[in-house]
Amino acid sequence: MSLLVTGSIGIDTVTTPYGVSENCLGGSAVYFSMAASFFSPVRFVGVIGSDCPFDLAEVFAGRDVDLTGLERRAHSKTFRWKGSYHDTMEQAITDNVELNVLAEQPPTVPSSYRDSKFVFLANTSPELQGKLLDQVDGPVFVAADTMNFYIHGYLTELKALLRRIDCLIINEDEARDLAGERNLIKAGDTILDMGPRVVVIKKGESGSFICGAGGERFMLPGFPAAEVVDPTGAGDSFAGGFMGYVAQCGRSDFASLKTAVVYGTVIASFTISEFSLKGLTSINRAAIDQRFETMRNLTQF
Amino acid sequence: MSLLVTGSIGIDTVTTPYGVSENCLGGSAVYFSMAASFFSPVRFVGVIGSDCPFDLAEVFAGRDVDLTGLERRAHSKTFRWKGSYHDTMEQAITDNVELNVLAEQPPTVPSSYRDSKFVFLANTSPELQGKLLDQVDGPVFVAADTMNFYIHGYLTELKALLRRIDCLIINEDEARDLAGERNLIKAGDTILDMGPRVVVIKKGESGSFICGAGGERFMLPGFPAAEVVDPTGAGDSFAGGFMGYVAQCGRSDFASLKTAVVYGTVIASFTISEFSLKGLTSINRAAIDQRFETMRNLTQF
Repeated sequence: MSLLVTGSIGIDTVTTPYGVSENCLGGSAVYFSMAASFFSPVRFVGVIGSDCPFDLAEVFAGRDVDLTGLERRAHSKTFRWKGSYHDTMEQAITDNVELNVLAEQPPTVPSSYRDSKFVFLANTSPELQGKLLDQVDGPVFVAADTMNFYIHGYLTELKALLRRIDCLIINEDEARDLAGERNLIKAGDTILDMGPRVVVIKKGESGSFICGAGGERFMLPGFPAAEVVDPTGAGDSFAGGFMGYVAQCGRSDFASLKTAVVYGTVIASFTISEFSLKGLTSINRAAIDQRFETMRNLTQF
Repeated sequence: MSLLVTGSIGIDTVTTPYGVSENCLGGSAVYFSMAASFFSPVRFVGVIGSDCPFDLAEVFAGRDVDLTGLERRAHSKTFRWKGSYHDTMEQAITDNVELNVLAEQPPTVPSSYRDSKFVFLANTSPELQGKLLDQVDGPVFVAADTMNFYIHGYLTELKALLRRIDCLIINEDEARDLAGERNLIKAGDTILDMGPRVVVIKKGESGSFICGAGGERFMLPGFPAAEVVDPTGAGDSFAGGFMGYVAQCGRSDFASLKTAVVYGTVIASFTISEFSLKGLTSINRAAIDQRFETMRNLTQF
């Protein structure tokens, strides 16, 4: 079923112990869409400037990604991010950021997207996430991401958004910050009280933990990656695999969400195995399903 | 089947954010035996001094723990450990340690224990672990623990021990140190090359990872504990549940070891829920099996 994503398109320069990837394609909507496209048609909403060297139609060629919602602004510049990872590569260090087009007026959701049933609001200001959500009529499952900046600076707006969404996908440190609670189990329950019926907490290489408003809980270890080349996009790819599977099966009961978390984990493991999008563009659904089975084998007893 | 443990008996004083537990019973052999006794008869080897205020026969009353190997030295003092946990409680800070009897001659394994089939060598010098192992005839599954102190200072002796045991149970940081490899998957493989056919890597609240010489791998998240009161003894309880189950079923094939890891995880979750041994002495096998099912429910998809 129809899956809408709103998020960023970025020109990234990323340094990791494995090398440097200069001016490569990145951004939350891009990673999300690439990951989700293995499962479901995707409707893309995002903005670039005139300087963007990437032809997204070409990037997504052969995939069911609708770019009607891609806006190119003649007098604007594309969002740029320069970051690096050191040591354990668990934390990205932002070396430079140019918001450019992201600091301007947000994009408009095309009218042809209004009937989208599944929606992912990638990380941006909660107020903007709300305005984007206003442009969709009666979605059945809405997930959003956020970050510490908004938890600390825009908590009122974030709490308003949380009352409107079904699922929050968030890092463990962000979950602790948002809940004001160090213990992740309690943090998850506290966030559920804020509105969403599902909270997905990502714990990096330690996996993920999801909890539902009916008391359901599920834990999945991270995929045991022997080589992590570039963690950029792991979270958005996870969300893409997760939401892609939910949209594909058209269900958001807890059993389906568990399977969705496994797919999200598997997809992210491909993303981090290479720089930029290479880990995702070099695979097919069969490779994903094979790793899904590996994950089952690794975790089931 | 018969399970032998060699390890310490301690008088612990532990401070955590939940309070202070002064002069309470601790030590690797004690935690291990209490945990293992839910699954299998245990043969206990350890030494105390004349100052030990605890009657171990009373402590283990009603449990099948053979104390023939408990030695009380009239002119010695019992091992004492004073430690504290702060913030995330992930790391114990040793505030004071008095080796006392642990710095003297090691205990002797009673002749009635020589036919033990399952053996756990708790953390001590690898040379001593080897000497204790010398006193057992033809065990079928031997597991050992070690720590950074021996990895850095007694690597030759440790490597000699690793060639004699079946299973190393180790923390993630220790595994990285021993293997000289940051990636845990690779670290596990490197340690397998040193001799054991199974490596169990404990990742604290993130769970555990085990790998076998036949390429088998299994990952289990930590039990989602809402309240951690005192992490002391978690590792030795984990080993006790793990080895207790292995001895109970008398098998050490990888499928059995996976189940054993789940039991180890479950047992440790009870240990950390209270100070000292209270979390273990207040439960029964039914409570353990119930939490085992909870763990299954939390992780299976």
